Amino acid sequence: MGMIGGGQGAFIGGIHRIAAAIDGQIEMVCGAFSSNPEKSKASGKDFYLPENRVYESFEEMILKEKELPANIRMDFVSIVTPNHVHFAPAKMALENGFHVVCDKPVCFSLDEAKELKKIVEETGLIFALTHNYTGYPMVKQAKSMIAEGKIGKIRKIIVEYSQGWLSTPLEKSGNKQADWRTDPTKSGVAGCIGDIGSHAENLAEYITGLEITEISADISTFVEGRKLDDDANVLLHFNNGAKGILHASQVAAGEENGLSIRIYGEKGGLIWRQEEPNSLVVTWLDQPRQIFRPGVGELSPSAIAHIRIPPPGHPEGYLEAFANIYRNFAKAVQARLEGKPLDPIFDFPSIDDGVRGMAFIENVINSGKSNEKWLKFEI
Amino acid sequence: MGMIGGGQGAFIGGIHRIAAAIDGQIEMVCGAFSSNPEKSKASGKDFYLPENRVYESFEEMILKEKELPANIRMDFVSIVTPNHVHFAPAKMALENGFHVVCDKPVCFSLDEAKELKKIVEETGLIFALTHNYTGYPMVKQAKSMIAEGKIGKIRKIIVEYSQGWLSTPLEKSGNKQADWRTDPTKSGVAGCIGDIGSHAENLAEYITGLEITEISADISTFVEGRKLDDDANVLLHFNNGAKGILHASQVAAGEENGLSIRIYGEKGGLIWRQEEPNSLVVTWLDQPRQIFRPGVGELSPSAIAHIRIPPPGHPEGYLEAFANIYRNFAKAVQARLEGKPLDPIFDFPSIDDGVRGMAFIENVINSGKSNEKWLKFEI
Amino acid sequence: MGMIGGGQGAFIGGIHRIAAAIDGQIEMVCGAFSSNPEKSKASGKDFYLPENRVYESFEEMILKEKELPANIRMDFVSIVTPNHVHFAPAKMALENGFHVVCDKPVCFSLDEAKELKKIVEETGLIFALTHNYTGYPMVKQAKSMIAEGKIGKIRKIIVEYSQGWLSTPLEKSGNKQADWRTDPTKSGVAGCIGDIGSHAENLAEYITGLEITEISADISTFVEGRKLDDDANVLLHFNNGAKGILHASQVAAGEENGLSIRIYGEKGGLIWRQEEPNSLVVTWLDQPRQIFRPGVGELSPSAIAHIRIPPPGHPEGYLEAFANIYRNFAKAVQARLEGKPLDPIFDFPSIDDGVRGMAFIENVINSGKSNEKWLKFEI
Amino acid sequence: MGMIGGGQGAFIGGIHRIAAAIDGQIEMVCGAFSSNPEKSKASGKDFYLPENRVYESFEEMILKEKELPANIRMDFVSIVTPNHVHFAPAKMALENGFHVVCDKPVCFSLDEAKELKKIVEETGLIFALTHNYTGYPMVKQAKSMIAEGKIGKIRKIIVEYSQGWLSTPLEKSGNKQADWRTDPTKSGVAGCIGDIGSHAENLAEYITGLEITEISADISTFVEGRKLDDDANVLLHFNNGAKGILHASQVAAGEENGLSIRIYGEKGGLIWRQEEPNSLVVTWLDQPRQIFRPGVGELSPSAIAHIRIPPPGHPEGYLEAFANIYRNFAKAVQARLEGKPLDPIFDFPSIDDGVRGMAFIENVINSGKSNEKWLKFEI
Repeated sequence: MGMIGGGQGAFIGGIHRIAAAIDGQIEMVCGAFSSNPEKSKASGKDFYLPENRVYESFEEMILKEKELPANIRMDFVSIVTPNHVHFAPAKMALENGFHVVCDKPVCFSLDEAKELKKIVEETGLIFALTHNYTGYPMVKQAKSMIAEGKIGKIRKIIVEYSQGWLSTPLEKSGNKQADWRTDPTKSGVAGCIGDIGSHAENLAEYITGLEITEISADISTFVEGRKLDDDANVLLHFNNGAKGILHASQVAAGEENGLSIRIYGEKGGLIWRQEEPNSLVVTWLDQPRQIFRPGVGELSPSAIAHIRIPPPGHPEGYLEAFANIYRNFAKAVQARLEGKPLDPIFDFPSIDDGVRGMAFIENVINSGKSNEKWLKFEI
Repeated sequence: MGMIGGGQGAFIGGIHRIAAAIDGQIEMVCGAFSSNPEKSKASGKDFYLPENRVYESFEEMILKEKELPANIRMDFVSIVTPNHVHFAPAKMALENGFHVVCDKPVCFSLDEAKELKKIVEETGLIFALTHNYTGYPMVKQAKSMIAEGKIGKIRKIIVEYSQGWLSTPLEKSGNKQADWRTDPTKSGVAGCIGDIGSHAENLAEYITGLEITEISADISTFVEGRKLDDDANVLLHFNNGAKGILHASQVAAGEENGLSIRIYGEKGGLIWRQEEPNSLVVTWLDQPRQIFRPGVGELSPSAIAHIRIPPPGHPEGYLEAFANIYRNFAKAVQARLEGKPLDPIFDFPSIDDGVRGMAFIENVINSGKSNEKWLKFEI
Repeated sequence: MGMIGGGQGAFIGGIHRIAAAIDGQIEMVCGAFSSNPEKSKASGKDFYLPENRVYESFEEMILKEKELPANIRMDFVSIVTPNHVHFAPAKMALENGFHVVCDKPVCFSLDEAKELKKIVEETGLIFALTHNYTGYPMVKQAKSMIAEGKIGKIRKIIVEYSQGWLSTPLEKSGNKQADWRTDPTKSGVAGCIGDIGSHAENLAEYITGLEITEISADISTFVEGRKLDDDANVLLHFNNGAKGILHASQVAAGEENGLSIRIYGEKGGLIWRQEEPNSLVVTWLDQPRQIFRPGVGELSPSAIAHIRIPPPGHPEGYLEAFANIYRNFAKAVQARLEGKPLDPIFDFPSIDDGVRGMAFIENVINSGKSNEKWLKFEI
Repeated sequence: MGMIGGGQGAFIGGIHRIAAAIDGQIEMVCGAFSSNPEKSKASGKDFYLPENRVYESFEEMILKEKELPANIRMDFVSIVTPNHVHFAPAKMALENGFHVVCDKPVCFSLDEAKELKKIVEETGLIFALTHNYTGYPMVKQAKSMIAEGKIGKIRKIIVEYSQGWLSTPLEKSGNKQADWRTDPTKSGVAGCIGDIGSHAENLAEYITGLEITEISADISTFVEGRKLDDDANVLLHFNNGAKGILHASQVAAGEENGLSIRIYGEKGGLIWRQEEPNSLVVTWLDQPRQIFRPGVGELSPSAIAHIRIPPPGHPEGYLEAFANIYRNFAKAVQARLEGKPLDPIFDFPSIDDGVRGMAFIENVINSGKSNEKWLKFEI
């Protein structure tokens, strides 16, 4: 693995490094950790990399690594930069034969995303998007139960992502994370809805297997002077007739990382909260609710395949779910090398998820500006 | 107290009777328990009433009770019939000098509600609407904390009322509760949004002191053949610039009586769930969240005034909250008799709440049918 | 009902009055509310009693009421005084033909309790002890499930009652509740273990149907100068071979009224917490845990018989559970009048529970003082 | 790192490998994964180790690695075998100059543990015991708060470890984990109390800084034919006068990995549950309870130093806590290399914890067999 971005002071880069390391199958062998060459070098040292594998730019890295012998060069790149620096390195890596892991949202704009999709298809290389929340075992369990019809035809979906950390104008105090996320030149057309709303959208479509068809959005910027949205309430229509609500906020004061989803079908419902990710509450029309947990009872094969600690009650968390994306991506790369098909149980978010995510972001922003009640979800 | 409706097989009548009895200050002395005289008589027997105080109709009751000596006749009527039989008995009772307690929603239509408001004002009598959820001590605490600015200017309100009991066409199986609630000739223009959505609207406006100004609604009927809505998702704008979501469902399979509210301000947030009504979670921008509970720490005088069991940890519930409405109404009647003002701490929902509630119902239904994104909240 | 004790400033008297009033079947017609005649009179006024039914002493009340015509005089006495004033009024009431409801623990000493049992048996009158926690519907459900063998042979019982309100020497600050509970002349040989430990003992034996056979106790007084225990940790052996832990504390700082029980059998377990009394968690050897709740799924007839609000999600609490004791006692009195047997579903704690409770208290105190590891539970 | 034990089919070995890998600072370079050489070889292949670094026995590994150049040979051994194979490899590793990480309990017997302590002291090498639960950030927070006197002098400690997985005679069905844990020739004198009770003891003493001085134990074997205890209830006295209860069970049917601790002092209390490890509930005498969480408000420096994901709400779990032990051990080794002192914030369980743990196990078993009520905690 060669990392692009994620130098000193970054948040998500460290997460990706741990996620890649957990299973002892992926090694970070090189990196271009910053657009500032000094910083990149300094970061490389922190990570015990040899100096000659720490590059001054992603372009340099891709070109030089390509020249190295196959058993030495990186197998893939991991892109952990802000949104506006996703497309260029992804495109260049793919065009030079490297598989790609990319942080979400996949690009700066829908147009970029669609172009990237073409490149992925043309090169035939493997592309993983780190919508990490789909890596949780109980999310896999929920998806399986719905696919098996356990809760019947879905009627209603309530998905939410509430944070409070941007309740104040943090971007003015030099906070690097707040800074780029609220800067339209780095983040794109959306703030909150791009940063976290897109996770909620992806989670809802992933678990249910449904697709959003229409949107009605109410977008707000509560913190004075902020350039992008920090709160969004969205009504949704799905392709099976289900109705939904998606709301996301970064000004829900005192909320931490409140991603949660509830799905009600004709026979029952499912409730999952990211902050207690090892419990999947299942409600039934006329039976007591049940709490599904890793290691307890009969779980779906896909849930089981994403649990690292078989005995129940040993909580796994965010890093393990994130690592599941990397682990599955590594399995896909391995399967490719061996010319074998990948067991679909080891799925991971793809460029298609990325395109839908970008379409969601732009459609929500457009709906927010529109006086028409319903906007078709267009890609 | 003379009760109108609430005979054998009714649900809410029994609740009102307990709520009125708990504090030992209100006695049910007569009733017209059913439009069916036989049933009314039979019910009266169950309640140990003397035969001559059990009437064949509310009209008979009001007229005959009026003739009784003041120390014997009922002091007020309690109306616990389906929605279409609220206006007539309320009007007649008021016009014959009786105070009124009325179940919600206040009337069959907004027009009726507005006419009733005029009558209340003209007669000067006391009118209480049993939006019972505002009677919980921790709801009072939430209202006080917001009024004192503890969580700062409010930005976002998420209020929800989820039930699952109408997930199937229960009204076709002879269930009396399901029957009238899904019958437009008895319930009015709305099903779910009238039955429970109006509670959510009332709770949100009561706690925050804000008013809804604009509405965008997505109304559904999921159960085939049902004549009224059984699910609603509504975006809200409030008069201080706050944004909101109100969603209500009676097809959220496996949910019980899931009324909950979350309110986020500039400095913190409040979370209250009716199913665990004795905990008010308070979130803070940069401090651990706190759990306010009856009997613990410094609560507001209004919260304390609505707790029956001072030592903490003795859970009070739905009946006690309901009884608080009756208790406060009784205090208002008493204060009137004594010519004293009522301490505003003993507030209860009034005809104004009723009018706003009916306006909410009609506006939501209108918005649901409209292609315009935002509909002004009109009364 | 005629009340003994429970005048102004008392806690439990008010609870008994509400519990008796809720169902509209019991009326408080007289009382001797204090050993201080002035106070008794003043209290009677608060309760709207006619002056001639407010007595200066329980002796006066019992004698005078006895002389009244049957349709006027009280049907039973309710004794809500401190422990040292339980035996005398209970004995006198029974010997004068009145049924008795008595607060727990039943007497000041085991000897008194055994004598009282004789009197109850000799008079054949009805005696209810308000171990109110056994009145909760989910406690009934737990008892039924165990009786039906749902969780298999019981192996382990963990019952706990934690409060924090006596963490400081509150009795020195004039707090009436703290005062008598920590005074050996009023409370008896035990403080915490008598006041709340006896509830825990009763709950464990009631739910499981088992009996404690051996005890090993560690008794503490943490607050300096306090005359009775304020904390106790007790190991238990039960008559089927099950092992148990009972711990009670009134110095568990910050705990409210933390009565909880967990019972594990060969096939599953049951978890119930008084502070969230409407949820009974059921654990299974190899299935997801379930949450049983009033109004959800198939509950036992005994659970259903103690629920006032049939639709799920309307929380009932402490007062309703307490009222269930009174309601069942009233049913027993009624059945006696009608010469019919009482359906055993309407059970309530009896003088036998009282004797076992007093034996428990004395055995625990004795074990606490002893160097022998195990003390036989003796009555 | 060279691993001893932990081959195919083992549970804890995989945990240690992930824990060591997470931070990218420790590499497993060799191993003797099984007493069966074939199995050891096969396991080594799974872990991508070169054949010449996979050994047939720990003796071979220690001797051969010692001969390798310093920059190639393992830095330390990690012992993840059943209890009866802890002492010999630990002793040999230390005597050949290798630091040691060892799974708990530290040895087969107290005598072994005391001898090992001597060897650790004589060699001056670094020894870490994986009482992994002390690695959780909120456990560090609890320890800090107590050290700072936040909850006042401690009065009561309730520590519990409940599992249900041995509710049936699993050891008879070929389950490897059940097999050795219930076999006195491999596990030692204790079953449940050694396997999980020792974690509870360590957690209680670690957080509070107190030491157990007296014990009264009730030990049971519920599953017929089982050779060691599967349930234990223990009363405790601590050296500051605090009283405690420790109970552990492997037959609490339906419980997963229920380690929890509650500590009450004169001013407040702390509640921590391993299954939701990111919440530390803090109770106060007269204030609402608070929920301390990683990333929220002012945490202690030691808590902060053990959090990997700074923004709140990204749950860390068992593996991260386990990794904290390895990370701190690695820091100690690094500090030793650099001749610097280790910041005490990076503490980890030592051979002293191991000796106390073995003493606890033997004292509890002795008390369980004794008729004396209190047994002094002897080492």
